[in-house]
Amino acid sequence: MSTTHPSAVATLREVGLRDGLQSVSTIVGTADKCRWVDAAHAAGMREIEVGSMVPARLLPQLADTEAVLQHALQLPGLVASVLVPNLKGAERALAAGAHAMIVPLSASHAHSLANLRKTPDEVVAEVARIRAARDASGSRAIIEGGVGTAFGCTLQGEVSEAEVLRLLQALLDAGADRVSLADTVGHADPAMVSRLFDKAVHRVGDRLRYAHFHDTRGMGLANAYAAWQAGVRGFDACLGGIGGCPHAPGASGNVATEDLAYMLERMGAQTGAQVPALLQLRRQLQQWLPNEPLHGSLWRAGVIRPHAGPMPDTATACL
Amino acid sequence: MSTTHPSAVATLREVGLRDGLQSVSTIVGTADKCRWVDAAHAAGMREIEVGSMVPARLLPQLADTEAVLQHALQLPGLVASVLVPNLKGAERALAAGAHAMIVPLSASHAHSLANLRKTPDEVVAEVARIRAARDASGSRAIIEGGVGTAFGCTLQGEVSEAEVLRLLQALLDAGADRVSLADTVGHADPAMVSRLFDKAVHRVGDRLRYAHFHDTRGMGLANAYAAWQAGVRGFDACLGGIGGCPHAPGASGNVATEDLAYMLERMGAQTGAQVPALLQLRRQLQQWLPNEPLHGSLWRAGVIRPHAGPMPDTATACL
Repeated sequence: MSTTHPSAVATLREVGLRDGLQSVSTIVGTADKCRWVDAAHAAGMREIEVGSMVPARLLPQLADTEAVLQHALQLPGLVASVLVPNLKGAERALAAGAHAMIVPLSASHAHSLANLRKTPDEVVAEVARIRAARDASGSRAIIEGGVGTAFGCTLQGEVSEAEVLRLLQALLDAGADRVSLADTVGHADPAMVSRLFDKAVHRVGDRLRYAHFHDTRGMGLANAYAAWQAGVRGFDACLGGIGGCPHAPGASGNVATEDLAYMLERMGAQTGAQVPALLQLRRQLQQWLPNEPLHGSLWRAGVIRPHAGPMPDTATACL
Repeated sequence: MSTTHPSAVATLREVGLRDGLQSVSTIVGTADKCRWVDAAHAAGMREIEVGSMVPARLLPQLADTEAVLQHALQLPGLVASVLVPNLKGAERALAAGAHAMIVPLSASHAHSLANLRKTPDEVVAEVARIRAARDASGSRAIIEGGVGTAFGCTLQGEVSEAEVLRLLQALLDAGADRVSLADTVGHADPAMVSRLFDKAVHRVGDRLRYAHFHDTRGMGLANAYAAWQAGVRGFDACLGGIGGCPHAPGASGNVATEDLAYMLERMGAQTGAQVPALLQLRRQLQQWLPNEPLHGSLWRAGVIRPHAGPMPDTATACL
């Protein structure tokens, strides 16, 4: 189509190099990570979170984030983003020229203290410092506040919608350019997603840019559809559904990029992603991670081929 | 809750003994099938499709349908249904005392001819004969017209919404008590489901009783959620996600009963199903089908346990 209604355009952000690899023990080499970035870009992905600006001793899998970022920054039309847990990480990201910085915040106080050693409001204050540093540097890097455990938490149990909405607004007030909502531990269901995203979109409009779902209990695509219906047009996803939940060993990880891209394509959305190329890249990923289970469903059946051939002559009254 | 809004009550129909087993080469013995029915009933399932009234030479896996039906008819509060491809099958079902008979119709003419050796309108005419036989017998067995390939077909490609809607109405006019819509070959996406179910509910109201989705490309739960939103409150599902598509060997099968029950429970719907008992039954099913891959996601992670324990001490800034 030569013209496209804006509401049918979706952005898929590949986060496998960050959220995926941080939860697998295999260390993928820098050259292979750059091949992954190249292939994802060639497959039409236009935003890739290439790593995390955390100390290498904490996440040796992501110790080469700067090198991967430098590579990604050379690709035309690609937004190269990194996770930054604090001002120090943001300073590294700014120095390296990242296009976007995602600052994680846990709406669950218990999870925030355990995971980030800060209360949510201390993270908000850090975002204000990151904004000041960004502006002082002359950089135009986007600051995204990523609100995690937005649908519940294994430590704290329920997380209140009001607190999530307050924190979204607080992040924007502190200087974040945009915000996202994440089901960090796989507790969301589509009714919850519909309720919370409706309220969040009402509150902050299209500054709510990304939805991040895990497929821990099979509801990843259903949740993505519910968020789509609420008006969200950006989705995080991991190739091959990698990115497990530390509380559910062996469980499915993030929504699989190839599955989500295909669902959106079938729904008529324009993602720019070429699903057959993503399926090819998934096969490559399995070679890079030979001992890690990949997830997702599309790889088994493949995309729908019109007129695939005659029916098996069973006459068994399928339904 | 002591009072429940009717719209939050959902019925899950276990179809694994029919749609699941008909696509599996392993023959499960009659005693084990009866154990399956017993355990599903004990887990709160209130409708089970126990088999298919087709000649044993076509589907030896289902040759004992009458025996399983006789067993199921003894269980209190259980609707025991069978698939009947034609009047002859219906006469068998009526003689055996089935509570409900599902008559499959393919909205795709090509699929209908290949699968049932009849055009869709010839199936409608057969439903009229089945209705006459049912009424003449004095039976109160429910006649359900199941419209398959409602979202596309591997032989014919697209299937028009108008034709599906016409056939739903024609089935009811011919004497079906209720109708259902099935994505026989796994072509549906949630936007298609939303469009077609909205129109179908508008046309026939709550006589559209069941939605039947395969998870061939991972969209089974998303499609179920879309149908739920359109007002449908009945869902077919197969324990362990068995029930493959003959056009996608090795692909995921029907929506997994345990995953769908859990999604609906999390959404606040009352299904009556006890998910932990379904997960236990799934483990039993794997023993009955030792060489068949089971599908679904919930079995890996299990249900959400509040306060599962302390966070791993990683401080790695999850999102």
